Parts: sequence; C-alpha cells; structure tokens
Amino acid sequence: MDAMDRSRRAPIAGSKTAATEAPLSSAGTASEAGGAVDDRPSRPGASLGSDFLQLDIADAPPGGRTAWLADRLRSAIADGRLPVGSRLPASRVLAEELRVTRGVVTEAYRRLSEAGQIAGRGRGGTVVVAAPAPPASPSAPPATSSASGRPSSPPAAEHRASNSRTPAPVFAALFTSPHRDGVVDALRGLSCRIDLSPGVPDLAAFPRTAWLRAERAVLAAATPADFGYGSPQGAPALRGAVAGWLARNRGIRADPDEVVVVAGVAQALGLLGQLLRADGVDRVAVEDPGSLGARQQLEYGGHTTVPVPVDTGGLDVGALRDCGARAVLTTPAHQFPTGVVLDGDRRRDLLRWAAEGGVVIEDDYDAEHRYDRPPVPALRSLLPDGVCYAGSVSKLLAPALRVGWLLVPPHLRDALVTAKRYADLGNGVLPQLVLARLMDSGELERHLRHVRRRHRGRRDVMLRAVEAHLPGARVHGAAAGLHLMVTFDGELGSHVRDTELAAAALARGVKAHPLSWHRLTPGPPGLVLGYAAGAAHEIEEGIALIGEALRALPTAA
Amino acid sequence: MDAMDRSRRAPIAGSKTAATEAPLSSAGTASEAGGAVDDRPSRPGASLGSDFLQLDIADAPPGGRTAWLADRLRSAIADGRLPVGSRLPASRVLAEELRVTRGVVTEAYRRLSEAGQIAGRGRGGTVVVAAPAPPASPSAPPATSSASGRPSSPPAAEHRASNSRTPAPVFAALFTSPHRDGVVDALRGLSCRIDLSPGVPDLAAFPRTAWLRAERAVLAAATPADFGYGSPQGAPALRGAVAGWLARNRGIRADPDEVVVVAGVAQALGLLGQLLRADGVDRVAVEDPGSLGARQQLEYGGHTTVPVPVDTGGLDVGALRDCGARAVLTTPAHQFPTGVVLDGDRRRDLLRWAAEGGVVIEDDYDAEHRYDRPPVPALRSLLPDGVCYAGSVSKLLAPALRVGWLLVPPHLRDALVTAKRYADLGNGVLPQLVLARLMDSGELERHLRHVRRRHRGRRDVMLRAVEAHLPGARVHGAAAGLHLMVTFDGELGSHVRDTELAAAALARGVKAHPLSWHRLTPGPPGLVLGYAAGAAHEIEEGIALIGEALRALPTAA
Repeated sequence: MDAMDRSRRAPIAGSKTAATEAPLSSAGTASEAGGAVDDRPSRPGASLGSDFLQLDIADAPPGGRTAWLADRLRSAIADGRLPVGSRLPASRVLAEELRVTRGVVTEAYRRLSEAGQIAGRGRGGTVVVAAPAPPASPSAPPATSSASGRPSSPPAAEHRASNSRTPAPVFAALFTSPHRDGVVDALRGLSCRIDLSPGVPDLAAFPRTAWLRAERAVLAAATPADFGYGSPQGAPALRGAVAGWLARNRGIRADPDEVVVVAGVAQALGLLGQLLRADGVDRVAVEDPGSLGARQQLEYGGHTTVPVPVDTGGLDVGALRDCGARAVLTTPAHQFPTGVVLDGDRRRDLLRWAAEGGVVIEDDYDAEHRYDRPPVPALRSLLPDGVCYAGSVSKLLAPALRVGWLLVPPHLRDALVTAKRYADLGNGVLPQLVLARLMDSGELERHLRHVRRRHRGRRDVMLRAVEAHLPGARVHGAAAGLHLMVTFDGELGSHVRDTELAAAALARGVKAHPLSWHRLTPGPPGLVLGYAAGAAHEIEEGIALIGEALRALPTAA
Repeated sequence: MDAMDRSRRAPIAGSKTAATEAPLSSAGTASEAGGAVDDRPSRPGASLGSDFLQLDIADAPPGGRTAWLADRLRSAIADGRLPVGSRLPASRVLAEELRVTRGVVTEAYRRLSEAGQIAGRGRGGTVVVAAPAPPASPSAPPATSSASGRPSSPPAAEHRASNSRTPAPVFAALFTSPHRDGVVDALRGLSCRIDLSPGVPDLAAFPRTAWLRAERAVLAAATPADFGYGSPQGAPALRGAVAGWLARNRGIRADPDEVVVVAGVAQALGLLGQLLRADGVDRVAVEDPGSLGARQQLEYGGHTTVPVPVDTGGLDVGALRDCGARAVLTTPAHQFPTGVVLDGDRRRDLLRWAAEGGVVIEDDYDAEHRYDRPPVPALRSLLPDGVCYAGSVSKLLAPALRVGWLLVPPHLRDALVTAKRYADLGNGVLPQLVLARLMDSGELERHLRHVRRRHRGRRDVMLRAVEAHLPGARVHGAAAGLHLMVTFDGELGSHVRDTELAAAALARGVKAHPLSWHRLTPGPPGLVLGYAAGAAHEIEEGIALIGEALRALPTAA
C-alpha cells in the first residue's frame, strides 16, 4: 500500500478490526498494534464524520462502485464495525472522502435502506438499525435435538467474530419469537452502541495490574506439580481463600473442604441438577419473575421448573409449600430481576421448609453489591445442612474468568466432587491460584469497594434518567446489585409490550432485557436495565433513547 | 519463636509445608517465602539426615515425648511431607538432633512400624511404606449414587491438602480392589517420591516466562468486552490459532468456526456422550487395552462401553464391525496404552466404517510427540464428516490449563456448542487469549521442540533401565508419546499380578499404572510407565525399584 492509497483511507475510530486491517491514517490517535484498544463506540452525538471505514475506492471494480460500497457497508455492519445505532456520514461527506459522485453513495445507502439495515432519522442522520441475524439459523436444527422440552440449540454468541453470514434484518424476531431459546446469548452476541443488559459489572475496572502482579507471583512460586492435574474439587489455596471470603463477606463459616470450585454459577446449577435428578428430584421451583438463564439451565438438565411468585417480600414461601417441589432455586439477597430482599419472616419460613427436607439452592449472584447497608447474611450461614450455596466472581470481577464456588450439604459433597470431576476434571489451576492471592491479599475487597462506589454512582444516574425520560415507569428493589427493574403499570402498561419496546430500543442502538423474558406467568411489562458496565453518559443517553422508543411505539401513543 | 527455639528445629529439605510453618534454620538453602519452591523429594540415596522436620521438643508435653514424636511423624506422612519411599533419619541421629534419648525415637519408630506406616529395610534404613488412605472413604457412599453401573464417587485427589485423616495403611487396596472407580485420581493424589504415572508431560519445562509475557500482552490489549461473557464456542482468537496449529501439526484443514474450545479431552468426551445419547447411541466401542479414565468418562455419562481388541496393527476394525456399536473411541496416532500406530489398512477400513455411518471419536492425545518421524496425519484430516476430533494442551503444555478443542461433523456443531454452553458458558477467556498468542507466535511450537528433545532423552533412559532392571519385560509401541507399556509374558507373566507389582512399587515410593487397570478382558500383566515428567536419575532409580519389587514378589520368586 503506498502513501497515496493511504491518503484515501480513513479509519473508523477505535475499531479493532480496522486496526488489524490497515495502519491508521492521519486521523491522529494512532492505536498501537497490541496496545490497549477501547472498543467502545464513538461518543454520543458525535457522528462518524469523515474518519469512517478503511475504504479504498481503488479496490472497487470499474463501473461497480455502488455495489462495492454497499457491500463494504454490509460487511461492516455484519462484523460489528458499524454497530446498531451508529450514524453513517452524510452522503455528501462520504462522497468527498472517497472521491466518488454523491449518487454512488446515496444509491448504496438506498440499497441498505431497502434491505432494512439502515434508516434515515431526519436530523438524526442515517443510522444502522439492524445487524445480521445471529449465526445459528433456526433452519438448521441440530440432528440431536432431544425430547422433554429441553431448550434446543441457542444461537451461539459470536463476539466480534468476523465470519459474516446472510444478513437478515429481522433481529427484532429475537424479541417477538414465542420461544426464548438462546435469546440472551443472541442479544449478548450482537454489537450495539449502548449496552444496558443486566448482569455484568464494570468491566473497564478489571484490575489488570493487580491480576498480572498476582500471576507473576503465582508463576514464580508454582511447583511443577501445580502444572499437572489439579484436584477436581479445586486448588486448596483457592478453597481456603473462598472460605475466608465467605466468612468476611457473607457470614458463612465453612471449612475449605466444603468448598467446591466450579466454572461459575451456570456450571453449579448444571452439577446440582445432576445430583438432584440422581436423588429422584425432577421438579425444581423457581422464582417468577426469575432469571431466564438459570431456568433454561435447569431445563436443559432435564428438570421441570415450577413457578413460585415473588412479591415485595421476596419468594412466596407459602406458594412454594403448596407447589410440592422438593427443591427451589432462589436469590434471597437481591432477587433477580425484581431486586427485592427476602424479608425476615419469609427467611425463617424458607429455612423451616428446608429443615423439613426441602433443598434450597441459594444463588448469591451479586450479594456483595449493596449500597445502603451491609448485605443480609446468606441463608447458607444459618442452615448448612439444607442449603446449597452458589457464588462466583462474575459480578465481583469478570464473567470471563468462569470461576465460582458451590457449597452443598455434607451428604452431597462427594457426589458433587465426582460430578465436577467428570464434567472437566476441575477448573484450570493458574487462575485459581491467582484469584486466591487476590482474595488473601485483600486486593479483591479493595476492588469491590472501588467498583461499588462506581456502580452506586451509575445507579443514581440511571434512576435520575428513568425519572426524566420514562415518567410512567416504576422502579423496584433495594439499593443493591448491578441492575434496575422498571415496570409500566396501569394504563401505560396495558398498551405496551415490553418485547416491542426492547426491539425498538435495539433499533436505536440500546440493548436491554424485556421483563417478560424473565416471567413464567404474565404480568405488567417492564425492562431489566443494567447500569454497572456503562459510563454515565451512556446510561443517560440509553435511557433517553428508550424513552424515545417508548413514545414512538404505536401501541403506547 | 526465639533464636534458641530455632536452633533446635530442622527443616525438611525443599518442603513447602515446612516453609510456611516456620522459617528455615541454618540448613543453608533458604527458600524464599513466595519464591520458587521445588517440591520434589530429596535426591535418591540421600537420607533425610539431620535436616529433618520442623520438630521442636519444647512442644512435647512432659513425659509424653514418644507419643508426641510418633504423632508428628504420622502427620508428616499424612500430609505428604514424608512421602512414601522417603527414608527416616537413623534413630541415633534424630535423638541427637532433638536432644532426647534414643529410646524415645526407637519407640516412636516402633509404633509407626506396627501401624504399617514405616518399615526397616536393612541397610536401606527406615523407610515410609504407606501413606493414609485417600480421603473419600468407601464407608460414606454418596446419597445420590445412581443406577446403571455408573462409576460412583471416586476418592477426591487431594493435592498436598493438609487436612489429615485417619491413617489407614492399606492403600495397597487401591490396586487389589476389584472395582476401579477413582483409582487413577486416588493414585494421583498420593505424594510419592518417584512418579512414573503415564500421561503427564515435563511439567518443570512449563514456559513460565513466555506465558507471563503473553498474559501481559493480552491484558494490555484486552477490551472491556473481553472480560465479559465470552462466546460459548471459544474465543475467536483461539479458534483461529487452533485451526492454524491443526493445519501445521496434524494435517487438518479446518475453519476456525468448526473448532469448539473445551476444558480438555475429558470434557470433550462428556459433551460428545451427551450428543450421542441424544442421537440414540448408548453403546460406544473402546480399545482394549485402552484408557481407563476415558472409559470411565463415557460410563459416567451413561454409556455402555464395548471392548474391541488392539494388536500390533492397532484397533481391530473387523471386530469393531462385528460388535455392532455405532461409535468408537480410538487413539490412532499412538494408541493408549500400547503405543502402537494404527496401520494403513486399518485406517482405510476404519474410515470406510465411518463413511458407512459409524462415528469415530479420535482422541489425539499425544500425537505431537513422535520422535523418529513426523506423526501420521489425524483421521479427521481425511473424513471431517465422520470423525469427531479431540485434542488438548495437556500433553503439550500442562494439564493444569484445562484447555482443549473438539471438532465434530458439521451436523453436530450447533448441538455441541449448546451442550458446551450449558456445561459452563464456555472456557475462561484470558487463558484462551494467552494460548492463542503462544500458538500464533510460534512459541508453542518452540516449546514442543524443546520438550520433545527432553522427552526423547528420558525415553531412552527408561528403555535402558528396563533392559537392565526388568530383564523379563517386553516393551511395546512406537517411538512416540509420554509413556512406555511393558508386559511380562510367558512364564514370568503367569506368576505376576501387575496390581501386586504396582502396590509393591508404591510401597517403595514409585508410582506406576498396572496394565490391568486399562484392560477390559484379561491379558498378560504389565505396567504403563510415564517418563516425561521425571528427571533421568528418577527414571533410572524408579525402574530399579520396580525391578526390586518384582523380585521380592512371592509369586515371582
């Protein structure tokens, strides 16, 4: 590539893909190969301007410039360089940039517009409104789809995967499809300008330096045996560190030998499901509303899930008794998605139920994130013999680590270790040892205090934004966690379908979960909105765009 | 602790446990806290001498010195500080060291000797002969033990776990018990002076510096999204790197999109088992002899395993056809444990069987370790539509990483990704990105060349040692891999039980697998001997001790 060529290229700001394709032009902020790259989309309001994509008109065949440009734009949308919600340059600007006639650009835009991938938004400019459908197509069901209502193959999430497939600008189907298999993963896999999905902490705050320092110490201290097959139950160092963590933060007194290290709460539920089924338990009560992902996990394992209502006091334990299930999955410290805390009477009643032989599966997913007072102790701290306790670092540090822990009643421990052993022979050892150091040194608590401050601030931003832009919405739950639940009650609620609202928000570049995804029985529409992972201005803009989407819904008019 | 106390303590050389209990005395080689610690036992022939254990006679109650000393020795045996095969100091030496009468020491030794934990070996001194039984006791079967002949809870491997349990000096039961549930893990969990178990590469060669360098680069380049939920199928970077690795090293041309990252071959078998069962396949043919661990993995997943004989040409494909199983698990590049390579005719016949609808599961566990010529290409390279291919870094780098890959025929891919998703939401992301860098940069190939040279040298050492010390043993297999199989044929074979031989070797401080563990139908006795993980002098001494054990067997006399 010569200098002249390069002068006609323009990078997309901060795009990793672009950075690997060609060196950046004179745009200024050179992004070093291998250096830190921020993949967050451009600032709100800032159009992509002239620094657009790595487009070189010399690549276009003579007489085929329009088709070439349309194709390049399509690819950029497909591989996430142009996420949903991003604004294209004005046709005049792009034409000048590429040294083509304006007609070439407007015609290319028109083709994408007819395909439903971009749309004019008046003074808002031309905006990407639909990415291609997620990879796994429903037209190719797995040959091994099985009986008994298991969720079938979900569309695999493709994080910035570059293999583009047939664009199908109908991803609103994500929200309108009657079945919900894989919808969470599919949404997760879409690139989008503003992500208000629940369940992810402030990932930009990941303590890279502390992690690397601990890893260096671990590698220096490791014996050759540390690189061999580890204990299926987990590295003794991490089990000890987790026992200490649980004592300090969750009121649980546990021997390290009770702790089983797992690959996150998802695996914990899978393994527990195996133990329960071996014990003849095939119906598990779940909270309604409750986590769609957790429910699908149980169902994939062959369980029937039985809804038990949640109200402002948390899980309705009376209804749990009545439903006859022998096990229940619950989130007592901060119910997902409502955010309520199980009240004292209910706690006592639930523990009585467990003492009478019920199995409580306590998913303590974000209990450390309480902003107004210390979190309630875990149920496990009161009844180790009746409570299976699952926690992880996904909300403390990063879901990418895939490390969690599971404590079960003593009579189930050996069977659990066996199940974990046959699942994967145990978690990888090095990350366990690194994590143990971060826990033992107080580094993880320091990190938690740091992100708790940031999360709390972002929560306040979201609350104010909801008040300003979603006046009809009611906010639920305690001052805790990584997300808010809002519902649209009364007159407004009777007109709004939250799946349509979420689809309309996505078309504007904002991801959020419709509450109905997490419901088993119908109820008021709403949204589940994560605030931890985004910057304040993104939260503010995201909620404003949701407000705009809400007002634009035909049903809400 | 004051200086005087310290002067009466003596450290056990290189013991990690000791190092964390108290600072080392004047013994010389100070081991920094947190610094690199080598947990390998003392040199062969070197008695523990006076630098023994962290014993402080001031801790002993008046009049209870014998009981105190016996108890301390028992603990040290239980927690692995005194592994099987290690030699105790002469009673006179220890008495002087502790400033007690010699009678105190001889009486303490007598008590342990009567309990079967130590034994006099004439000029060989007093040696530890039995560690406590592995933790999970058969007297506490899991409440959830299930039907259908699944292996029940194996004794959990406890890597240097410090919680000592009732010593039961009967761990020879490991080898004599008729059922083999968890025996591999239990043996793995025992500390032992010389480890000739198969299946582990040279762990001391783990490229710590390269790993840390790559991790630093990964952390510097990671976007916040890299710390979020990754693709269940595996990080695109690693899938691309694995595709490149397989093309360069195994002759497989695969698109990164075909690669599914898994937590090692054990998980690969578990996931494949699910797919097969969903497809109505509940009998899987396995090689006989063949890996006990792999077979147990399939059986835990609910499959019946059907033995198919292996001879010098590899798997008997005719017998496979006759047995009627629709799937087979095979190790064509270097059969485990025999070490033979599937010959050309058999390869073609096996591929015909697959083309006719059979499912071949190719466990390519150590194919990169061929010493005399390039390894045969994988079966997968010839028939992507009929071969499920599993590989991992366990034999390339370290089992502790728990990273592998699985390629399946196209029609199974989506179901596989779904199964992996519900197993654990995907492997941890950071190690995937580190590994991708090591693969893409050529660092992993450099490492492989390095350890291949070392492994080859150790193999030669073991071959010479077998010739010298096990004159009746026949060595099998190709110049490849990380282990040798030897059998005792003819007259000798009819007298030896390999489980008894392995038990006698263990009593001398040497771990090895009896071949009968890996057999489904009876055959000549033998041993499976790993050479990759130990230093030359350990291999030499280990084989010599096995020779001694063999000659001492009453049946072999």
